[in-house]
Amino acid sequence: QVTSPSGEGTDAIVILEKTPFQEEKVSDLLKKHTKLELQMHNDIYSTYHLYPPPELSEIKTTVVYPATEKHLQKYLRQEVHLIRETWEDYKNITLPFIQSQSFSIQWVYNILEKKAEADRIIHENPDPCDGFVLVPDFKWNQNQLDDLYLIALVQRREVKSLRDLTAEHLPLLRNILQEGKEAIAKRFSVPGSQLRIYLHYQPSYYHLHVHFTALGYDAPGSSVERAHLLADVIDNLVLDSTYYQKRALTFALRADEILFKKFQEAGRV
Amino acid sequence: QVTSPSGEGTDAIVILEKTPFQEEKVSDLLKKHTKLELQMHNDIYSTYHLYPPPELSEIKTTVVYPATEKHLQKYLRQEVHLIRETWEDYKNITLPFIQSQSFSIQWVYNILEKKAEADRIIHENPDPCDGFVLVPDFKWNQNQLDDLYLIALVQRREVKSLRDLTAEHLPLLRNILQEGKEAIAKRFSVPGSQLRIYLHYQPSYYHLHVHFTALGYDAPGSSVERAHLLADVIDNLVLDSTYYQKRALTFALRADEILFKKFQEAGRV
Repeated sequence: QVTSPSGEGTDAIVILEKTPFQEEKVSDLLKKHTKLELQMHNDIYSTYHLYPPPELSEIKTTVVYPATEKHLQKYLRQEVHLIRETWEDYKNITLPFIQSQSFSIQWVYNILEKKAEADRIIHENPDPCDGFVLVPDFKWNQNQLDDLYLIALVQRREVKSLRDLTAEHLPLLRNILQEGKEAIAKRFSVPGSQLRIYLHYQPSYYHLHVHFTALGYDAPGSSVERAHLLADVIDNLVLDSTYYQKRALTFALRADEILFKKFQEAGRV
Repeated sequence: QVTSPSGEGTDAIVILEKTPFQEEKVSDLLKKHTKLELQMHNDIYSTYHLYPPPELSEIKTTVVYPATEKHLQKYLRQEVHLIRETWEDYKNITLPFIQSQSFSIQWVYNILEKKAEADRIIHENPDPCDGFVLVPDFKWNQNQLDDLYLIALVQRREVKSLRDLTAEHLPLLRNILQEGKEAIAKRFSVPGSQLRIYLHYQPSYYHLHVHFTALGYDAPGSSVERAHLLADVIDNLVLDSTYYQKRALTFALRADEILFKKFQEAGRV
């Protein structure tokens, strides 16, 4: 809070970010009169606290001033909690929540019907039951392969998420895995072994879709509490057609999300 | 490269990591005689370079010395590929590889036998079959909870990895999940719902261990191609005691790793 000339308090946002090391400056860091403090020693391993001179430890600083309430909300940290959702939780809490919300997925239908982004389609299998469309994700600008990100949207419209999948969907899932890899190898020369291919649970929209990201890219949402490898999903369904109607699934929710409040009300948090 | 007294070159690995901000020190950062350089100004937004005093910009430093060829390989940047390892692959390729390597896990035994880091133990269940020791991971300096990282090391010594687990290990795994959460809540006031609790496959050493990281921390190795949530592992074993002796498992290997070459030789890449 900064005081303005009129004496009224005015909020400022200050964002501090440590920046990545610059390769050419690392040797300076080890050479200069840098204070080094031993913390722990065990066998061949030891750890130290190193205190670098100011010129080698720049902090990127962004100031928003004057900041409105909206700016403040955007940057306030929200607590995140893991939920362990059983099948009963899904039926009693999550599914009614999904059905009560009017998530618009018109943009998905626009792509499937070629009303939008038709020129962006990388691959299409038009089968209404086992087909899909592969498009670059909005997050990827297609300028470099390092952060390659594509999405496969299934043609059929009644499959909301991982929770709906049974062995019936195996042909569809295998098509996505196989044809998706082939299309990306052909168009972008990235081999299937360098692709992370997965579903989100919870997804951000309830029309079944599969993420394809570059393996070397630490894509948001690729961590274990949200991502499910398509190859694992296929194998689990082969093992047990009702696997995803039996198994508890973990996901993270922010404390201010409606679904989190629903789990709280049900005494499940 | 460090020169030993005998004049022979001996390699050392030095790992430098910038650590998260400590909340209580942020005001010092803004108060002290900190050099601030304006970079850009536009409307309500401006950016600066800030050069903090050494004591406010600690760098976590880890030294591995003397480092073997294997240690060096581990930290060099390399092309990475996903492997889909069937149970047959495990038996024919991975297991013989593990057995042929002499991975030293003396440092694990040192901890279990209280010969090292005894003062760092956060929790211990001494049962030789279903017990474990919980210690802060080397990667965590314990100064802030943002990057909280602990490791549970099991007391029994014959369980190499996820691949060895059957329903027989459920009591052990449940102890780790339950007591690990309780110990961390007690010592660090971080609730279980804000912990990501998982195993790695492949692990970096073949003595069963479980990772506990802060949910808000994008911990290395927490992505879907390496991490397996302990809660999922337990549920899979309840569903099928031989789940991990049946299911194919995905993991990433660098192109220069011996195990990758073994999979290549077997025509599995």
